[in-house]
Amino acid sequence: MIIIMEPKASDIQVQKVIDFLKANGFEIRFNRGEIHTVIDAIGDKTTVTPGRISGFDGVKEVKIIREPFRLASRDRKPDDTIVEFSNGVKIGGNNKPVFMAGPCSVEDYDGLIKVAQAAKESGCQFLRGGAFKPRTSPYDFQGYGEKALKFLQKAGNETGLLTVSEIMDASDIDLMCEYIDVLQIGARNVQNFKLLHAVGKCKKPVILKRGLSSTIREFLLAAEHILYNGNPNVILCERGIRSFDSAFTRNVMDIASIPVIKKYSHLPIIVDPSHGTGERYLIEPMAKAGLVVGADGVMIEVHHDPENALSDGKQSLPIAMFKDVMSRLNQLTEKIHYEKNCLSANIG
Amino acid sequence: MIIIMEPKASDIQVQKVIDFLKANGFEIRFNRGEIHTVIDAIGDKTTVTPGRISGFDGVKEVKIIREPFRLASRDRKPDDTIVEFSNGVKIGGNNKPVFMAGPCSVEDYDGLIKVAQAAKESGCQFLRGGAFKPRTSPYDFQGYGEKALKFLQKAGNETGLLTVSEIMDASDIDLMCEYIDVLQIGARNVQNFKLLHAVGKCKKPVILKRGLSSTIREFLLAAEHILYNGNPNVILCERGIRSFDSAFTRNVMDIASIPVIKKYSHLPIIVDPSHGTGERYLIEPMAKAGLVVGADGVMIEVHHDPENALSDGKQSLPIAMFKDVMSRLNQLTEKIHYEKNCLSANIG
Amino acid sequence: MIIIMEPKASDIQVQKVIDFLKANGFEIRFNRGEIHTVIDAIGDKTTVTPGRISGFDGVKEVKIIREPFRLASRDRKPDDTIVEFSNGVKIGGNNKPVFMAGPCSVEDYDGLIKVAQAAKESGCQFLRGGAFKPRTSPYDFQGYGEKALKFLQKAGNETGLLTVSEIMDASDIDLMCEYIDVLQIGARNVQNFKLLHAVGKCKKPVILKRGLSSTIREFLLAAEHILYNGNPNVILCERGIRSFDSAFTRNVMDIASIPVIKKYSHLPIIVDPSHGTGERYLIEPMAKAGLVVGADGVMIEVHHDPENALSDGKQSLPIAMFKDVMSRLNQLTEKIHYEKNCLSANIG
Amino acid sequence: MIIIMEPKASDIQVQKVIDFLKANGFEIRFNRGEIHTVIDAIGDKTTVTPGRISGFDGVKEVKIIREPFRLASRDRKPDDTIVEFSNGVKIGGNNKPVFMAGPCSVEDYDGLIKVAQAAKESGCQFLRGGAFKPRTSPYDFQGYGEKALKFLQKAGNETGLLTVSEIMDASDIDLMCEYIDVLQIGARNVQNFKLLHAVGKCKKPVILKRGLSSTIREFLLAAEHILYNGNPNVILCERGIRSFDSAFTRNVMDIASIPVIKKYSHLPIIVDPSHGTGERYLIEPMAKAGLVVGADGVMIEVHHDPENALSDGKQSLPIAMFKDVMSRLNQLTEKIHYEKNCLSANIG
Repeated sequence: MIIIMEPKASDIQVQKVIDFLKANGFEIRFNRGEIHTVIDAIGDKTTVTPGRISGFDGVKEVKIIREPFRLASRDRKPDDTIVEFSNGVKIGGNNKPVFMAGPCSVEDYDGLIKVAQAAKESGCQFLRGGAFKPRTSPYDFQGYGEKALKFLQKAGNETGLLTVSEIMDASDIDLMCEYIDVLQIGARNVQNFKLLHAVGKCKKPVILKRGLSSTIREFLLAAEHILYNGNPNVILCERGIRSFDSAFTRNVMDIASIPVIKKYSHLPIIVDPSHGTGERYLIEPMAKAGLVVGADGVMIEVHHDPENALSDGKQSLPIAMFKDVMSRLNQLTEKIHYEKNCLSANIG
Repeated sequence: MIIIMEPKASDIQVQKVIDFLKANGFEIRFNRGEIHTVIDAIGDKTTVTPGRISGFDGVKEVKIIREPFRLASRDRKPDDTIVEFSNGVKIGGNNKPVFMAGPCSVEDYDGLIKVAQAAKESGCQFLRGGAFKPRTSPYDFQGYGEKALKFLQKAGNETGLLTVSEIMDASDIDLMCEYIDVLQIGARNVQNFKLLHAVGKCKKPVILKRGLSSTIREFLLAAEHILYNGNPNVILCERGIRSFDSAFTRNVMDIASIPVIKKYSHLPIIVDPSHGTGERYLIEPMAKAGLVVGADGVMIEVHHDPENALSDGKQSLPIAMFKDVMSRLNQLTEKIHYEKNCLSANIG
Repeated sequence: MIIIMEPKASDIQVQKVIDFLKANGFEIRFNRGEIHTVIDAIGDKTTVTPGRISGFDGVKEVKIIREPFRLASRDRKPDDTIVEFSNGVKIGGNNKPVFMAGPCSVEDYDGLIKVAQAAKESGCQFLRGGAFKPRTSPYDFQGYGEKALKFLQKAGNETGLLTVSEIMDASDIDLMCEYIDVLQIGARNVQNFKLLHAVGKCKKPVILKRGLSSTIREFLLAAEHILYNGNPNVILCERGIRSFDSAFTRNVMDIASIPVIKKYSHLPIIVDPSHGTGERYLIEPMAKAGLVVGADGVMIEVHHDPENALSDGKQSLPIAMFKDVMSRLNQLTEKIHYEKNCLSANIG
Repeated sequence: MIIIMEPKASDIQVQKVIDFLKANGFEIRFNRGEIHTVIDAIGDKTTVTPGRISGFDGVKEVKIIREPFRLASRDRKPDDTIVEFSNGVKIGGNNKPVFMAGPCSVEDYDGLIKVAQAAKESGCQFLRGGAFKPRTSPYDFQGYGEKALKFLQKAGNETGLLTVSEIMDASDIDLMCEYIDVLQIGARNVQNFKLLHAVGKCKKPVILKRGLSSTIREFLLAAEHILYNGNPNVILCERGIRSFDSAFTRNVMDIASIPVIKKYSHLPIIVDPSHGTGERYLIEPMAKAGLVVGADGVMIEVHHDPENALSDGKQSLPIAMFKDVMSRLNQLTEKIHYEKNCLSANIG
């Protein structure tokens, strides 16, 4: 931690900061300059965060040097985290990117199984569908709850697909775990710390979506809450951030966040071009963009009848178009996977 | 609802949209132009949201005409909501703006009661303090929980101040209600719908903070979730939004949101310049800015010893400075209140 | 300047940075730690900017300590800059806030003189009007150019008001200076460096508007370009920044930027609530918000017939409403001015 | 244009809007509802922009139906624009994506020719380099001006590469055109309308960079200014937009803007991952992301000695790394080009 003092900070102010830091176990080196004084505090104590130091009089700025996420950091764990499922599917590292598909909301079994079968045939490993829906307006459809979870489980069993669904509240954790293989935490809940702690204590794999205004650092700190509570099976998901322009796309997909996160963290990360853009015609190109920069998977909304979808029809692919898109995404995935493994083989 | 079709939308596509809307009880007027077709759907059904229509082929854009919040809307309820407490304190309408003060986190009773007494002497009506703290990092101080609630209650009883504290999870509601007069929902939980529903079912007054990237519409829709679940005692709080510049202030306070919300909603709204700026020296000017544009109250962080605060010391006022600031804010408040009431009297 | 090296930076990498800085006249102090190395480079050379150092291998981050604006900085010039006009009007310091009013575009003399007379009667010191209009679309009205400048000059002469108009290109400077008392640089040109240099070389007072996505630091650096080229008469103008929400207001006015800039710079700053919000009903409250936090003036769009304005009618006040608003703003200004001077007198 | 009236708009207010629109040649259809009135104004007059109508009393909102850019619109010109150079190089349509490389600033001929030769060998078609540099601070290096242009021309002649350099002011146009093949307009000048008009009147191809806070619509309207003034040879460039997070990347590259712009406009678009991210290690992945979603080219900063670059060393590739990156980008480009042409052949 580096503490930059105000130009006019007094000797007493400087000394108070130093005394406090020393008392908390930090080693101190400092340069008292004519114009500015810089204190370099070396230590790794969890009790003294930058916020505490910035409250001292005379402190201009506190600069962290080590990223505040630790368990999520590649510095501490250089090897990629690989999330593995009982049926052998793996996410992360040098494994081939995975595909997840399904409707925004589970509405009825007939529609769901049609989508599930198309997903299976197209090479997906996961069926995703909403049972509990976070909705901006109380007048929007809120999901069918447990009934939807049962449909998902049944469709998963029938097709051999693993199932993914969003958990909205810590109190739902037992219910969700009974039916579902992967818990998803939505963008709006990325800083619902009680929920993060609850999924941290359970061992189910978790897909954690980036919040609409999460910085990359905050996103990794949200993952840290899960890791810190004991669950290493965290899969991150880039799904677009809020910008000043929403005329043509609902959000802006921060594609660069994928290689950035790969550099700073060992956790796998997937992309969700349906929510990331809100537009059907952008799903294929943005899935490709995610894959070429290193995403470990893609999540796509598919509906058997988008015009009658109870939510998010606009960003869902109809089944025929989905199959078509998947054929090209599978090709690209094969090619990327082949090159990555050649490269690994050469390096090895 | 106005539906603008793509320039190349076919007759069949237009008809499908119209049939669907009619089947859902809408009255339809439409202009089929050479270049564009515009469908004006008149109705107020909760089952057909814009998102459903935008999934139809050939639809370019769906434009809502009535704001989607209803119970929160001034159209439906022209009179200001006034939240009234058992001790006679009132927030909203033509009542004099209120003041809330206290530490970010409650740390010990001695410190708390010092702040509470200063708040009381300075004319505040509310003591606020954190018991459960949402923290970006799991390594930051998370609050003292129930112990802190007990201290708050005790300090409230001793001084006659009403107490405010943040609720982080729906499961804490009984605990919170036992000790606290006003529940606060923090910026990160503004779309934690389970929590909104829980405080909606309880009747305690609620301070709902605007999310870091909430639009004004989303903010009022979050309030709508509470109102819809039965609790009319909602107090909004502007506390800064996230922008591209955080070098000098943590957030950007959207001061204009106060008169905007006063125009479109009947709910009271207060300002929180401590979180809104993150800087001690900006608390007074930004409190004044909020008051002159019509805020119904101000929430200020005060700590008896900011340099040793376990959180947010930088944006807390020390007690002496707080008293000084309050003397000027009280003056301004008197003046505003006097003018408002003269004005009302004249109009009446 | 503090240089934080990557955790794995080699001794050679560290040494290369140090050698380069020493060769450029910096005094170096550094801490080579086990985990991180921090180099504190003391000096104030203009040839070595942070950007140059960040290109070195092994450098993680370069942190400036002194703000990069110098002439604009209060550190170097603690006294408020006061811009003074030949007729005795003064902007900045302890002078009473000024008012500027006029149409977005000058359209005809009859309309202009009506507005000018209303401005004069209401206590304004400046008449502003557009002659050259920066327009997002080439199909929008681009202004009447020199003809409009002549009208402005004539209306200024007739009423005794000083005139303000926007300069769009360095090549227009002689033309503008012939007719106009204050040059305005619009938000879109805040980083048109040729234009900044041109107005810097001329001595006319300049109103510099903050760009839609200017950080406060960039805004002050834009002013620095003018000061550095020799013109000390710079008046800053907060006119709203771009945010994720433009449903109810065109921009978000960053009211806190006023006290922030007052702390870090000696330059006067005014507010423009017309452009800052885009809404007529928000002009009065946001002008008040600017004034109570210390703005040195307010700029308001007024049109004699907003419904027939060729541009920005929605954010213009009609004359009658303007007079009404001004009566209240004048009252507030008197009060603020009185308190400020009492305060100064007491301190003095 | 659709005009939505306020719920309480009077008959007179509605009539005034209608009369005005009719007088300006619009055909009117309107629905006067109990709750809301919607006016559908059909016409395409350039004199009546939405801004004019929104100034009328009783108007809630004006909604454009046709995009305001016309010459840039794919509706009016369905075929891709192809910019062609005298040496046969083509940008846009089904042509193979092009590559542009070079230093941020031209510093000396020796360094420049090294980069130019590497660019040529790696399959680039363009050499880019800065002669006039827009710099946030007046203390940063501002470029070598005409001397740099001469070096560029010489290096272009020697290698057979076309040359690109940034024009900062309309008055430099003759000078620039004497030496350079493609004029670049930088992000900060995207709404410098005098400059847009000047390059519009000249016939040189122009690379127009998206502004830091340009919406896609504003970006295309900036291009419209050039097209409208007579120059059809506009090449757009996505180079990142400003977001709330700049800790790991300088800007956020809006990769989705490429397929969006391809849908709504016929103009070619390239990507600049150097400025888009500000990080050397992100250049390759983000170039790939741009190419897979359909970009017509990539612009990369390369320096022969990044540690001694006078500007932007951090985002420049050293020559050896550049060659390596280019070998992989060329492979990807071949593959994309092959698939695109197979597809075209099949469709044809």
